[in-house]
Amino acid sequence: MKDTITHASAMSDTDIVELGQQLRVDSVRAAAAAGSGHPTSSMSAADLMAVLLARHLHYDFDRPDHPGNDHLILSKGHASPLLYSAYKAAGAISDEELLTFRKLGSRMEGHPTPRLPWVDVATGSLGQGLPVGVGVALAGSRLDHLPYRTWVICGDSEMAEGSVWEAFEHAGIEGLDHLTVIIDVNRLGQRGPTRHGWDLDAYARRIRAFGWHTVEIDGHDIAAIDEAMTTAATTRGAPTAIIARTRKGRGASEVEDREGKHGKPLSDPDAAIRELGGVRDLRVHVQSPPDVEPPARGGGDPHTALPRYETGGDPVATRTAFGETLAALGSLHDDVVVLDGEVGDSTKAQLFSADHPERYIECYIAEQQMIATAVGVGVRGWTAYASTFAAFLTRAHDFLRMAAISRSAINVVGTHAGVSIGEDGPSQMALEDLAMMRAIHATTVLYPCDANQTVQLVTAMADQPGITYLRATRGDSPVIYGPGDAFPVGGSKVLRSHPDDQVTLIGAGVTVHEALAAADQLVADGIRARVIDLYSVKPVDTQTLRTAAADTGRFVIAEDHHPEGGLADAVMGSFGNGHPTPLHTRLAVHTMPGSATPAEQLDAAGIDASAIAAAARKLVAT
Amino acid sequence: MKDTITHASAMSDTDIVELGQQLRVDSVRAAAAAGSGHPTSSMSAADLMAVLLARHLHYDFDRPDHPGNDHLILSKGHASPLLYSAYKAAGAISDEELLTFRKLGSRMEGHPTPRLPWVDVATGSLGQGLPVGVGVALAGSRLDHLPYRTWVICGDSEMAEGSVWEAFEHAGIEGLDHLTVIIDVNRLGQRGPTRHGWDLDAYARRIRAFGWHTVEIDGHDIAAIDEAMTTAATTRGAPTAIIARTRKGRGASEVEDREGKHGKPLSDPDAAIRELGGVRDLRVHVQSPPDVEPPARGGGDPHTALPRYETGGDPVATRTAFGETLAALGSLHDDVVVLDGEVGDSTKAQLFSADHPERYIECYIAEQQMIATAVGVGVRGWTAYASTFAAFLTRAHDFLRMAAISRSAINVVGTHAGVSIGEDGPSQMALEDLAMMRAIHATTVLYPCDANQTVQLVTAMADQPGITYLRATRGDSPVIYGPGDAFPVGGSKVLRSHPDDQVTLIGAGVTVHEALAAADQLVADGIRARVIDLYSVKPVDTQTLRTAAADTGRFVIAEDHHPEGGLADAVMGSFGNGHPTPLHTRLAVHTMPGSATPAEQLDAAGIDASAIAAAARKLVAT
Repeated sequence: MKDTITHASAMSDTDIVELGQQLRVDSVRAAAAAGSGHPTSSMSAADLMAVLLARHLHYDFDRPDHPGNDHLILSKGHASPLLYSAYKAAGAISDEELLTFRKLGSRMEGHPTPRLPWVDVATGSLGQGLPVGVGVALAGSRLDHLPYRTWVICGDSEMAEGSVWEAFEHAGIEGLDHLTVIIDVNRLGQRGPTRHGWDLDAYARRIRAFGWHTVEIDGHDIAAIDEAMTTAATTRGAPTAIIARTRKGRGASEVEDREGKHGKPLSDPDAAIRELGGVRDLRVHVQSPPDVEPPARGGGDPHTALPRYETGGDPVATRTAFGETLAALGSLHDDVVVLDGEVGDSTKAQLFSADHPERYIECYIAEQQMIATAVGVGVRGWTAYASTFAAFLTRAHDFLRMAAISRSAINVVGTHAGVSIGEDGPSQMALEDLAMMRAIHATTVLYPCDANQTVQLVTAMADQPGITYLRATRGDSPVIYGPGDAFPVGGSKVLRSHPDDQVTLIGAGVTVHEALAAADQLVADGIRARVIDLYSVKPVDTQTLRTAAADTGRFVIAEDHHPEGGLADAVMGSFGNGHPTPLHTRLAVHTMPGSATPAEQLDAAGIDASAIAAAARKLVAT
Repeated sequence: MKDTITHASAMSDTDIVELGQQLRVDSVRAAAAAGSGHPTSSMSAADLMAVLLARHLHYDFDRPDHPGNDHLILSKGHASPLLYSAYKAAGAISDEELLTFRKLGSRMEGHPTPRLPWVDVATGSLGQGLPVGVGVALAGSRLDHLPYRTWVICGDSEMAEGSVWEAFEHAGIEGLDHLTVIIDVNRLGQRGPTRHGWDLDAYARRIRAFGWHTVEIDGHDIAAIDEAMTTAATTRGAPTAIIARTRKGRGASEVEDREGKHGKPLSDPDAAIRELGGVRDLRVHVQSPPDVEPPARGGGDPHTALPRYETGGDPVATRTAFGETLAALGSLHDDVVVLDGEVGDSTKAQLFSADHPERYIECYIAEQQMIATAVGVGVRGWTAYASTFAAFLTRAHDFLRMAAISRSAINVVGTHAGVSIGEDGPSQMALEDLAMMRAIHATTVLYPCDANQTVQLVTAMADQPGITYLRATRGDSPVIYGPGDAFPVGGSKVLRSHPDDQVTLIGAGVTVHEALAAADQLVADGIRARVIDLYSVKPVDTQTLRTAAADTGRFVIAEDHHPEGGLADAVMGSFGNGHPTPLHTRLAVHTMPGSATPAEQLDAAGIDASAIAAAARKLVAT
């Protein structure tokens, strides 16, 4: 195949037309081999991809970690056959591998994932590629200070997603001129015409209003595409959107611009391949990235002290300990980046900004873009901590779900969790965040109850793979641990223990303190209670729980969370696979709270010390 | 107080200035009494609220269910003191009740909720009031055909939320000229200046690009506000956005236009009240709504037959049964409205549109707006079914969470759940939807395994309070039930049972069929297995599960979902409060799937018949 290489400089418009046809043919072949997939959505964007590959992308496919590589994100991830066909044309994969599309074990998944080294992030949930691309481009502009470009190929249907407009806003304001979005306006969504059809100006007007430069073109005109991409690469001070009118299924009369042809292989692929000029074996020489050095990272001041809180001293909110730890981590490690959702004064993340303003990114009230930015800077090797009220992280649930598929290692902190926030009422109370974060693949979920514990856990987060979530509390908590105490991920702390314990009280966060108080109350009843601080909610300390079950036979689990998917479910998860489960009582927030003081809230929800003690008495009497 | 009523026609601009000051004073007083709250965010919008109340709102506070009432949604819900002060000025609540703000048991919650009869929906998670308002206005225009207006008061910070742009898009395209958004541009967010400060045109440009009429005004100029609202009420063919420059904390020098004054009572409320001219007791006569009839509803063709599927006949996908049932329900009940997220051909919701196009609302790929529209039409008494791929419902998690606080009764259907979708890969697989939906307050969660069961459950959804979720499957399932079988919410079906059962196999959806096949395999080992179809995941059939535990002592639970928060956790939830828990093994999706056939996926995840049988053998041998 080597002798078929056409060098970029030598690739004429005619050659690129041929390359576009090859990408179409290979998309049709891949879908035909799979018996499923989205060839028509691939065919509309084939000329756009061909020009990008042959003339504008700078990428070393042999070195996907090259610091100067451009980034190519296929936001319309269902057009994966096009992406894989492009990889084949670039010599990165073989034709044989292309034809394993959608087969068990193949890297050629239905939608792209980073199992392929050239894929930065998983796509397939629409409206996410551009937000992540904004994060990558922001890293280039503010953190890496490198000239790589970020190219995002979007579909027209996904312009309906609000997340896309969070991205347009963020990129427009930041003037990310190394970011280009290419919108493949093929006018047909999954079930029929899109909202705006081929009204390119409807998109352009909106995008321009958000501060972008826009270019409207015929997406099958090689020269026009080339000129638009040149414009994008040379426009300064604003990102560029190339809005391209295309035809879905372009080039195959069976499907071209027809409804009902979304997401399925062609009925007669051979006829279409003939119509497209047959199978080709062109290889494109993608331009090399510039020879740049990666940003110096790995430094920081190793003498920076982590915060220390006096055991038994003034109570401290875990959110405060989070913010103070974050500020210290910023000095210790020069790769730490902090993202805020316009609540940094409340979450205390803002404490980071004083010494590290260049690594503090204000995302305003746009939680989807905040998580996407975390993922995007993570693509470039930065260690991101994103935080807002835990309740509002639900806004970014789909981004977190996709970040897990992207194998993204990001740190997420949700403050103001639970009814214990008090007067603000239920809209501000996260009562389902543990369920959300536990159910995402390969997450770590931490929930500290004191300031010194928070320091250790916030520090440990940076070294965890996957998504790590830490739940923090608004109100002040007693400092019960020492500054030197260790809290390994997956561990727990047994705070009270005696061979004659009759019941185990399990809490995390605010309910640890309630459980301790309950244990004190139970002494008067002659009941000895073990108390476990289950600060690592996922993974959970199975061994300690099983020992407690064997020793005491009875658990009372109290959590400032709805009854489903939180602490109690985590505890019960330790007793599958045939391990005997202890008798237990679950205390959680069953009712809809209103406004009240924190103490009134804990009482009303039945998760305070007296409720825990009452449940323990009843269980022991069983 | 009656004699202080000032009639709208008699309320001069000077009177309205006074009313605005009263609203400020009362906001300051309420926050002072509470010791918390957001007086400054209330004060910026006080003149806007005063003009709206005195001159433009049509509302009968004695009849909040009056069909002609306008709708007033305070999207910036933290400005609740302003709303409550307005209710007081309108005579709806007493001064005493106003001063119970944020106290235990008070309806004057920190953020508004429908515990107050004049509040349509809970607000407090920013960026949701406008989307819901679009739903209400859409009901007026497309369903109710009534002339009520919907007024939404937004903050400037919340313009960063993508959901707001989904709403601008939907309303602009629909030309909802009975919808007005009033943006209180006080330039200060929670932690400092907003992105656009007082650049009113930055907002106006963007909003105009989405097809709205915009008006920029000084939000403290009574005449300008009045003129803008008149313009809004008389503009045809487009919704209007009134973009008002205001000063946060307006009128109190301690806080006016100062940073660091968000979300806290004034230090010296008495001084501020003096500065604002003291306590007043003006009452405003809000104009009556027009004397209109509510839309005729409650009809439909009672002879419409629900779909029936032949037991043991051709397999049918539960998504197909969902769509066919929906179409029948549309004929049976003329209050059923269906909302699609541009996947109606896949979810089969589109089958409803043929006979009921006027009640089928295409929301395009904007899941937040889809759920908001469901909530909005629900405010007007319509029964909404919203559906998309279950995976993409995570996009609307925060809207679902808030819908629960709104006590909204909406029906949500997620199709293509689990690894059983096959080749499309993990981005399209809902593996956390049961966890998400179970953990939301007061939800019902249903998961049918066959077409006839789906018919009954989809029909039952409409009568459930709160949010009801139904999980549907992409692939065809055997029809194992009869068309007449009953499936009460909270029930289950025991499909195999014998006094000598040694183990109970529990599944829902696709795993019911795997459990049945596993039971067949176990016969060869001489193991009798009970099989339970746990189609009602929440509430769960505690009695049947406890009986099975007592009878067999061993459970194998298999689910096409991540291990956390789904079926197994629901089963285990039946054994709290001191009930002995059976030995059990949980089978769920622990790994990250790729592309493969449905059967390969079930095998790879270890949730197919052979995995269930193997787990049962091992457990029985324990």
